Amino acid sequence: MPNPDIIAQAMYAKDSYSQWLGINILETKKGYCRAEMTVREEMTNGFKIAHGGITYSLADSALAFASNAEGRLAVSIETSISHTQAVHIADVITAEATVMNSSPKLAIYDVKITNQNNEVVALFKGTVYRKSDDWDTIIKNDINL
Amino acid sequence: MPNPDIIAQAMYAKDSYSQWLGINILETKKGYCRAEMTVREEMTNGFKIAHGGITYSLADSALAFASNAEGRLAVSIETSISHTQAVHIADVITAEATVMNSSPKLAIYDVKITNQNNEVVALFKGTVYRKSDDWDTIIKNDINL
Amino acid sequence: MPNPDIIAQAMYAKDSYSQWLGINILETKKGYCRAEMTVREEMTNGFKIAHGGITYSLADSALAFASNAEGRLAVSIETSISHTQAVHIADVITAEATVMNSSPKLAIYDVKITNQNNEVVALFKGTVYRKSDDWDTIIKNDINL
Amino acid sequence: MPNPDIIAQAMYAKDSYSQWLGINILETKKGYCRAEMTVREEMTNGFKIAHGGITYSLADSALAFASNAEGRLAVSIETSISHTQAVHIADVITAEATVMNSSPKLAIYDVKITNQNNEVVALFKGTVYRKSDDWDTIIKNDINL
Repeated sequence: MPNPDIIAQAMYAKDSYSQWLGINILETKKGYCRAEMTVREEMTNGFKIAHGGITYSLADSALAFASNAEGRLAVSIETSISHTQAVHIADVITAEATVMNSSPKLAIYDVKITNQNNEVVALFKGTVYRKSDDWDTIIKNDINL
Repeated sequence: MPNPDIIAQAMYAKDSYSQWLGINILETKKGYCRAEMTVREEMTNGFKIAHGGITYSLADSALAFASNAEGRLAVSIETSISHTQAVHIADVITAEATVMNSSPKLAIYDVKITNQNNEVVALFKGTVYRKSDDWDTIIKNDINL
Repeated sequence: MPNPDIIAQAMYAKDSYSQWLGINILETKKGYCRAEMTVREEMTNGFKIAHGGITYSLADSALAFASNAEGRLAVSIETSISHTQAVHIADVITAEATVMNSSPKLAIYDVKITNQNNEVVALFKGTVYRKSDDWDTIIKNDINL
Repeated sequence: MPNPDIIAQAMYAKDSYSQWLGINILETKKGYCRAEMTVREEMTNGFKIAHGGITYSLADSALAFASNAEGRLAVSIETSISHTQAVHIADVITAEATVMNSSPKLAIYDVKITNQNNEVVALFKGTVYRKSDDWDTIIKNDINL
């Protein structure tokens, strides 16, 4: 299988929304990803704090990179998130996705999202389903999924 | 209490991210909101379908409008979403948030997200905590929350 | 495929725990089940109300009957429950499981649990994975799964 | 506040269902509890493996002991569980509840459930709401909650 970094970069290169968010992938390993972004004014809600969808989006991208980095195409089945602390403009938030359980078809990840002061701002849990497509083939043939 | 529409519009007027998404609030009642948006290329992920964070964001905004429309400030505690079908560029997706259970401090909402063909693309469930602040006072005094 | 009632009864006949709970299956259709039980003193926690595990168990059984009644073996992947009101000794609680979304491999169910006064005591959501085993074969061959 | 062990034991002493399950509290600290039980035949479903409600019940009890051990009455708002591996008769399953985030009114716990071979059989997440009642007063006055 390709290097986990190569898979994550191949995904990111075509991922317009993660690019709009300004996501920076810090580290990718099999079943693991750490990614960060900086909150901008256009990402805030009516209370001038980050919209819940922003934190969710960062976590969901980290989940996608971590789970696909295991070598096979993985799609999210069910995700949940608890927002524990407000996130403000200019905050740098980091999502760390870690595999908690893995079987041939299903895997569960915890994603912890912290701010620049290392405070937990959200806790995310995601379940993915592994398809049969492998990333080796996808990348070699530049397949559009 | 203010009219549910007035609360939702007051929230939306300051909600930069919901405006970026292009959310259009179709209807707001106590404990209910229906809102739609059109998916753009910049909202897609590496598979050129809408990023999971986009559908979540629409649902989370609908939850915010529906729960605050009951008259008191409501904040999300825990949310979950299942993505059931891919969403493509130019798809018009609609989120319909309905209160399922309500107590003085907590309320639970189901949000169903469908596309222009009335197919379910995601199912969302959210729990909110009601603070003591009421929207009458917030709007009259133009309080920045 | 066998009649949904036959599948649910085949499952219930070997289900020691659902029998201990005293679950009574009221109705089974494809993707639907309604079942009830009466709370006994031995099912209560330290606050002398039904333990959260009791309401969950009834909902989980209803999910199992509803999802397997579609004809293929279904196993639960992820479930969530919100307990919205206390359940007391002698309360009759009813779980109504309804399919919300269905694909060849996955399906999502909502289960609403109410008491004898038709008050919502819990809201449950469950995702199942459909295996290839079909209930026709399982029942005809009396397979022990 | 009373010793966390004293709170957990006070709860357990009146908790008929946890006693029926045969739960053995191994350790309780503020925001933490580890508890085990052995699966009996009467706890199995139609597939002769532990009913999902059994694993949930153990996790939910561990959550209750861990969260109340912080000194104030805590009630569950929302819980989710993923069953990752079958549990069989005579298996000894252990639930370890750990606080992940805590605020004056809300707290989130992860509960990991493993079998005697230290394999993960389920992953549970729970959110509790802290009431104003403190366990010091509850125990001193033998209040029936």
